[in-house]
Amino acid sequence: MKKTFDAFQRARSHIQQLHAYEPGEQPQGDGWTKLNTNENPYPPTPKLAAVLAGEVNQLRLYPEPRSLQLRQAIAGRYGLSAANVILGNGSDNLLDLITRCFVSAPGAGHTVPSYSLYPVVCGMSGQPLIDLPFDRSMQLDVAALAATDAKVFFLTNPNAPTGVAFSRSEIEAALQAIDGLLVVDEAYVDFGGETAIPLLREYENLIVVRTFSKSYALAGMRVGYALANEGIIALLDRVRDAYNVDRIAQAAALAAFEDVDYFEAQREKVIATRETLRAQLDELGWFTYPSAANFLFTEPLSSSGATGAEVAAELFGFLKERRILVRYFPNHPLTCAFIRVSIGTDAQMKLFIQSIQSWLDNAPHK
Amino acid sequence: MKKTFDAFQRARSHIQQLHAYEPGEQPQGDGWTKLNTNENPYPPTPKLAAVLAGEVNQLRLYPEPRSLQLRQAIAGRYGLSAANVILGNGSDNLLDLITRCFVSAPGAGHTVPSYSLYPVVCGMSGQPLIDLPFDRSMQLDVAALAATDAKVFFLTNPNAPTGVAFSRSEIEAALQAIDGLLVVDEAYVDFGGETAIPLLREYENLIVVRTFSKSYALAGMRVGYALANEGIIALLDRVRDAYNVDRIAQAAALAAFEDVDYFEAQREKVIATRETLRAQLDELGWFTYPSAANFLFTEPLSSSGATGAEVAAELFGFLKERRILVRYFPNHPLTCAFIRVSIGTDAQMKLFIQSIQSWLDNAPHK
Repeated sequence: MKKTFDAFQRARSHIQQLHAYEPGEQPQGDGWTKLNTNENPYPPTPKLAAVLAGEVNQLRLYPEPRSLQLRQAIAGRYGLSAANVILGNGSDNLLDLITRCFVSAPGAGHTVPSYSLYPVVCGMSGQPLIDLPFDRSMQLDVAALAATDAKVFFLTNPNAPTGVAFSRSEIEAALQAIDGLLVVDEAYVDFGGETAIPLLREYENLIVVRTFSKSYALAGMRVGYALANEGIIALLDRVRDAYNVDRIAQAAALAAFEDVDYFEAQREKVIATRETLRAQLDELGWFTYPSAANFLFTEPLSSSGATGAEVAAELFGFLKERRILVRYFPNHPLTCAFIRVSIGTDAQMKLFIQSIQSWLDNAPHK
Repeated sequence: MKKTFDAFQRARSHIQQLHAYEPGEQPQGDGWTKLNTNENPYPPTPKLAAVLAGEVNQLRLYPEPRSLQLRQAIAGRYGLSAANVILGNGSDNLLDLITRCFVSAPGAGHTVPSYSLYPVVCGMSGQPLIDLPFDRSMQLDVAALAATDAKVFFLTNPNAPTGVAFSRSEIEAALQAIDGLLVVDEAYVDFGGETAIPLLREYENLIVVRTFSKSYALAGMRVGYALANEGIIALLDRVRDAYNVDRIAQAAALAAFEDVDYFEAQREKVIATRETLRAQLDELGWFTYPSAANFLFTEPLSSSGATGAEVAAELFGFLKERRILVRYFPNHPLTCAFIRVSIGTDAQMKLFIQSIQSWLDNAPHK
């Protein structure tokens, strides 16, 4: 006997309205210069191979459910206790847990533009999201932030997609001004931002979220962490899947975290490459936001001196035809005239700049 | 300036009331005979080592977000399309996604006893859970199941912690009788259960959930999948973290899934060992439920002929002192006189039976 089921009609109403997060393109073929999702151009620590090989024969066993060794290592580095740390299956997982625990009416807040996952995690929980619009300066208006009355405010610092960093004193001013929780999403902080971690001692309304995806080159491994007072961490632990971080992810993140020399060397290379690229874009006369992240947000200027959405879209398409992927955000007036380029190797950046030169020399806009 | 934040008072009310899932003990030291969390006693396919080594240098890159190769491989095996498959960070992740999408008042349903995660995923979403009590026969009352009116009914088949399997015709009768969704959680089906997968062609109100943790020996890797009509899968994809299954987990699960010969050989060994142990428990005169899973749920009988909670608790403690861990569920009248023992290697089962003999010969109950 056949039985039908109208899944859409049976879904909860906020799920019917939900738009899933759209990740940047992940082309699986070879030959792409992938500068669109802020991955690290260098591999993770070479010590990883041995660590992973050692885990293979343990895979029949469940992971340690609390990722305790990682909690301890991270806590030790930052002068905190393990009870101040929680690990997630990527920091996206933690943003969802925070939303599930603490967001109710009037909702969560975020700056516009910022990381496009915040609307998704709010939508997944059926909660409203309050916009705090930036102007072209991309500076933080602390009074306006506090006036949102958000239960949880998500602030990416350094911000995405601009790369603009907010100072610790701005973060502290926000913590003083708000009634709810401030989540400082420090995905990119290792490339030049000022961390909010020292403020955890004074401000119980602060959660710092970080990831191993960018500066530790482990985007493929899905490990993020959050730091906060232990009351907050205990609640997040309640809504966490019991085994949310697998054995290999725990081992890989620990090995990467502990190889400080390798980490520092790669990070410095990325920063140096960013500054070289930035100087080259400056030379072209392009406006580029000051970046404390592993990407640059730049406003292409055509050879006829024009900027705007058409120019940016044309360059994006031109690069893509040559199998160079950057990120283009057409849907907002503050982003549609820009492209975001992840910092790659020096060779990749050379190819990128050469391709821009070729676009300036040959593209249809001439 | 110091700022306090009462996290508990600020949490959503259903989170304040939530009790986190308590996983079975995961002792990290050596020397334990671990028969408490239904892990496979044999390692995953030996082909895994090479697969993992090949992924190490890709870890800087995000995973393919949809786990598409796995979806295709699983769909192909079961005569479905990739649009009928979703992968999760363990099947626990999928149970949560199903709850988030489809459960509202009057709530979800489950049998009592069954997998103790169902109350947690309902609590995480602030939704009620309706109990369908078993009696000692552990048989399914389809009319009572339908009468719960649950939006989603979770049915573990074979059931946990008993190991008792329900037939496909019982599942079909339930699908006909209910108005909501039936989630058949087939975590243990490869050890002798009858799968509901063929019913997917006729019943759009069916979701089959499976895991690589048990029969594929990948508990440490966190990969599960769900099969359902494509409307259901599309909704679950909306609430899934964009990169919920990491690169290594995808590669490991695919390698394990495709090594059919190895899978079959290990599965048959586990089944044979289970039947040997079962015969030994029968010889002792212990009541044991017929099991189609990789564990046995047995009612210890003391040397003086007694059964009950005290006897089971005493045996549990006796075994634990000897570093043999089984699972004991003291909180329900139908479980408190039993212990659940995962099927290990033949050597582990020999040690287990010898220890029972030693308990019968020497324990204080004599």
